[in-house]
Amino acid sequence: MRRSIATVSLSGTLRQKLEAVAAAGFDGVELFEPDFTHFPGMAGALGRMAADLGLTIDLFQPFRDFEAMPPGLFARSLDRAERKFDLMQAMGAPLMLCCSNTSPLSVDEPELAAEQLHALAERAARRGLRVGFEALAWGRHTARYGQAWDIVRRADHPALGLILDSFHTLSLRDDPAAIADIPGDKIFFLQMADAPLLSMDVLQWARHHRVFPGQGDFDVVGFYEQVLLAGYSGPLSLEIFNDMFRETPNRRTAVDAMRSLLYLESQVRQRLATRAAAARPDARAADVLQVRELAEPPAAPEFAGVAFIEFAADEATAPGLGMQLRQLGFRRAGRHRSKAASLYRQGDIAVIVNAEPASFARSRFELHGPSVCALGLRTPQPQAAQDRAVALRSQRHRSPLGPGEVEVPAIVSPGGNLMHFVDERLGPDGLFAADFVPDEDDDTAPDAGLRRVDHIALGLSLEQYDTWTLFTRAVLGLSLAESQELADPFGLVRSRAAADVARSLRLVLNASLSSRTLTARTVGRRGDGGVHHIAFASDDIFDSVARLRAQGVAFLPISPNYYDDLPTRFDIEPALLARMREAGVLFDRSADGDFLHIYTRAAADEGLFYEVVQRIDFYDGYGAANSAARMAAQAQAQT
Amino acid sequence: MRRSIATVSLSGTLRQKLEAVAAAGFDGVELFEPDFTHFPGMAGALGRMAADLGLTIDLFQPFRDFEAMPPGLFARSLDRAERKFDLMQAMGAPLMLCCSNTSPLSVDEPELAAEQLHALAERAARRGLRVGFEALAWGRHTARYGQAWDIVRRADHPALGLILDSFHTLSLRDDPAAIADIPGDKIFFLQMADAPLLSMDVLQWARHHRVFPGQGDFDVVGFYEQVLLAGYSGPLSLEIFNDMFRETPNRRTAVDAMRSLLYLESQVRQRLATRAAAARPDARAADVLQVRELAEPPAAPEFAGVAFIEFAADEATAPGLGMQLRQLGFRRAGRHRSKAASLYRQGDIAVIVNAEPASFARSRFELHGPSVCALGLRTPQPQAAQDRAVALRSQRHRSPLGPGEVEVPAIVSPGGNLMHFVDERLGPDGLFAADFVPDEDDDTAPDAGLRRVDHIALGLSLEQYDTWTLFTRAVLGLSLAESQELADPFGLVRSRAAADVARSLRLVLNASLSSRTLTARTVGRRGDGGVHHIAFASDDIFDSVARLRAQGVAFLPISPNYYDDLPTRFDIEPALLARMREAGVLFDRSADGDFLHIYTRAAADEGLFYEVVQRIDFYDGYGAANSAARMAAQAQAQT
Repeated sequence: MRRSIATVSLSGTLRQKLEAVAAAGFDGVELFEPDFTHFPGMAGALGRMAADLGLTIDLFQPFRDFEAMPPGLFARSLDRAERKFDLMQAMGAPLMLCCSNTSPLSVDEPELAAEQLHALAERAARRGLRVGFEALAWGRHTARYGQAWDIVRRADHPALGLILDSFHTLSLRDDPAAIADIPGDKIFFLQMADAPLLSMDVLQWARHHRVFPGQGDFDVVGFYEQVLLAGYSGPLSLEIFNDMFRETPNRRTAVDAMRSLLYLESQVRQRLATRAAAARPDARAADVLQVRELAEPPAAPEFAGVAFIEFAADEATAPGLGMQLRQLGFRRAGRHRSKAASLYRQGDIAVIVNAEPASFARSRFELHGPSVCALGLRTPQPQAAQDRAVALRSQRHRSPLGPGEVEVPAIVSPGGNLMHFVDERLGPDGLFAADFVPDEDDDTAPDAGLRRVDHIALGLSLEQYDTWTLFTRAVLGLSLAESQELADPFGLVRSRAAADVARSLRLVLNASLSSRTLTARTVGRRGDGGVHHIAFASDDIFDSVARLRAQGVAFLPISPNYYDDLPTRFDIEPALLARMREAGVLFDRSADGDFLHIYTRAAADEGLFYEVVQRIDFYDGYGAANSAARMAAQAQAQT
Repeated sequence: MRRSIATVSLSGTLRQKLEAVAAAGFDGVELFEPDFTHFPGMAGALGRMAADLGLTIDLFQPFRDFEAMPPGLFARSLDRAERKFDLMQAMGAPLMLCCSNTSPLSVDEPELAAEQLHALAERAARRGLRVGFEALAWGRHTARYGQAWDIVRRADHPALGLILDSFHTLSLRDDPAAIADIPGDKIFFLQMADAPLLSMDVLQWARHHRVFPGQGDFDVVGFYEQVLLAGYSGPLSLEIFNDMFRETPNRRTAVDAMRSLLYLESQVRQRLATRAAAARPDARAADVLQVRELAEPPAAPEFAGVAFIEFAADEATAPGLGMQLRQLGFRRAGRHRSKAASLYRQGDIAVIVNAEPASFARSRFELHGPSVCALGLRTPQPQAAQDRAVALRSQRHRSPLGPGEVEVPAIVSPGGNLMHFVDERLGPDGLFAADFVPDEDDDTAPDAGLRRVDHIALGLSLEQYDTWTLFTRAVLGLSLAESQELADPFGLVRSRAAADVARSLRLVLNASLSSRTLTARTVGRRGDGGVHHIAFASDDIFDSVARLRAQGVAFLPISPNYYDDLPTRFDIEPALLARMREAGVLFDRSADGDFLHIYTRAAADEGLFYEVVQRIDFYDGYGAANSAARMAAQAQAQT
């Protein structure tokens, strides 16, 4: 399997792009011509640079406005093509992408288009080059792959083939099923792109909002499957026009790109295996040329809750964190055998405060102050979880182990914090029994009825949002809810939830579009991908709130107008409404159930805050309708 | 004329919004209900707070999904309305905005809609309140003002009227002409919004991309004119949903808002005056109730070129700036009579290097280092130019004057630099003859053939882009070219040009969407609204470049591939192409003429750079097609 990426998908100078692409393990690139036009060296020098980096230049693109033109313009375009062929030969690019004509001067005559493309292919062939014809979704007369294939078929030249791009097909809601009927050797190249579903002009959508497969809403797996069923055996490539990728440091983008392809391959491999194993096995599926080359990471892990949350601290800040946890109803349950770390417990929740000098936690503390530096995720497949993550280009992390301590497979998540995969078979206390010495003398703090971690909200920069979308979906195997935009008084915050099937692990990704929201400031202080807030589940939120208030926990004050408004939106028992008003608890309702929740005040230093939640029946959201109430109250609290 | 603004148009908490609105001189607000729902006080307290700030609450909005509902839902909605009427009475808001129903449960029966709105108005009237009905562009059955007016007319209740919003009409390309036929006293409220022309879902467009009148592409003047012709005499209000305004500091937004209304009024006043003065005077135009209340700033000035560019420096940096100017072919032409400032001249160009301690320039130097702190714009109407700017809410600036020096009216432009309006009657040297002592001994520097300032490019933060659009259009009376997005290797840069009719003054506004481009870094270093580069016009660019190179000026190296590509895009004389290649000159062509230009290398400290341009025939652009070449070369130069 040759993997490739278009240079337009990354930020930087052409040299920097190629270096990032090579470092991420790609085999080749599609050269986006403007990158070459501004490259300080000539074509031969570029070819040598790519070769030195172990990259081939698989495709030269785009060649525009060629086919179905009146004769004078056609002659001129052939000359133009010859100049591009000169470059391709000099740099060693074997294939030119010719995209369907958008010019108002072009005519709607497939026969003429075929004839002219035949002539172009003949010129290419004389130089040992090939031409691929691609339907742009906004092409003037050729917008669908079926039309482009019809023209290629009519042209009937061995040096002319079809180029497919998932964006152009899926953005038009065109059916990719007929791709499987195209002879595989006539598909010269495959470009994959995903996108969020947006209601806008397709050209704007294509130029600004494409994302890597797995980051958007398109059925890219189904599309790729059809291409493989056709017998395609060329490179799998990415062509992504995205405003954010244009500015994101390109090493990170290149890793996301590779992760995206490996994930896509693993999904399509499963689909093909299902076809082959079906009651009426699909003959074509068995024949797919590349099936053995498709990536096959271990299956995504199942999860069984959050095993622990680890805070980075130092000796000066650890006692404050500990006091905060006691106020929240945690008791100190142990000291680490070999490290300066304490364990706090309440219900199924375990929180570690790690102040060990020269540790990973300490390095995070030095960057971000007291903050969450690691999560422990409980799973029956800890090793497979780590292996999958590593196969999908996450970094493995190894911690130094003391004698008798349990080794927990861990990875680095985007932004630099750790995720540990904790073996479920250790039970709720097993890990801590091995690593921590029980702390019997601390049983003074009254429990607040917090039972387990409901969800963990992360604060991301906007440019990490798609990275985390792909990480949670591909590496952790979570499913993602729709992205929403929430109104903070100082700008919008984009938010989406990722959860496992059993809803034992819920992560909420928050990225501020503005630099002035609390979310943005939290990211600045606590790190990109740091924990924004932690929500604990209670079985009786009013009881928990009363106990927490008694311990001096300060909750975010909610406007009386919120409670006046609630009964105009929902039918609520007056007694419940009165209780919520008195306690300061927020309310949401979906078709599946109700949701009661409340937030603690954020610390003055823009540290994280906590949420207490109670889910009733099968409510599956996060109270997004109340996020404006929370953010307004937080802004209010600062003034 | 009462001027109002919806609270959703600004960032901040509700108190902060009201304070900003009051400070900008508004009379009232439209209260966007969610702002109230999250306000920490009750309705009475809000009313008192607004009154204390000298503001009325003109409108409570929005009341949604009311009309044309099945009976059960209708009864429930009436109850909901009563709760909102309670609030309105308590806060002193006389009018409720009811927007057309978007619910799939609503029915397409105008008669039913009218009947239910009649009932709503009756309930309102009992409390001394009124209801205005507005057609949302995405209303399920009522999307156009004509439909809404039909329903209001059928309902026939004195407490029910129409609310008009320019966005909903103009986004649907609906014709506002029939508004003039609606009885003015049945139009209860007017909301104005402008928008750029975008091809997207109208709801997304409405919720994220509205701008103040004068910042977008809609014919808001024509719309407002029809409303005045109808005899409307209520408030003129702004309702703007804009992602950027949500995060921009609200004092600045409020000033833009007021400037926008004053400019809109002045434009419509002119239109009405034209109507009244026409061969067949329009009886209605003479009757417009508010015409005398419409703002009437002095007319926009004519311009006659850039009189001077003033750099802020100190004693340590001034010699370096002077050396740089000499290298560019300027000669030192004088010293200021009373200040530590030097004058440099070449052709019609005058550059002042101001190192006067305790001066305005010095305060800018301390903020931004050596940078342009003021522009002198030549005009036959210097005082009117300043008066207009002040009438449109720019700040007047007065400099201390030495004996015998000329007073030049000046204003503060957005971001804090100055614009001086220099009397054209002073001639090209008059201003300097009065203020500067000639410096006869400096005639060594060879002239480089730079004749005049062609254009000045400013670097803006994204949130200043709309501010500058309105400032250049309204205050300076310039006309704006379409906004473009230019590809820097590290992100996109939004760019548009503003120019006077005579093309004697050309400003280019550049705002980076990314924080990693050179443009973004220049804004960071040289200030928001600071000069990004200065383009000088030459009558023979090749001669100028040769002379400048001889003086050691370093130009941005352009890739050989650029010159290989040029003849595939344009028919160019081979001899000219060879000259451009040799000199490193860039080329562009429009239907009106050709453009030759070249850039100097930016200083390592991200200071500004220079451009030399030659316009051939009537080329009216700025070589935007070459901006990618420039920005790639600049990025290259940094690596």
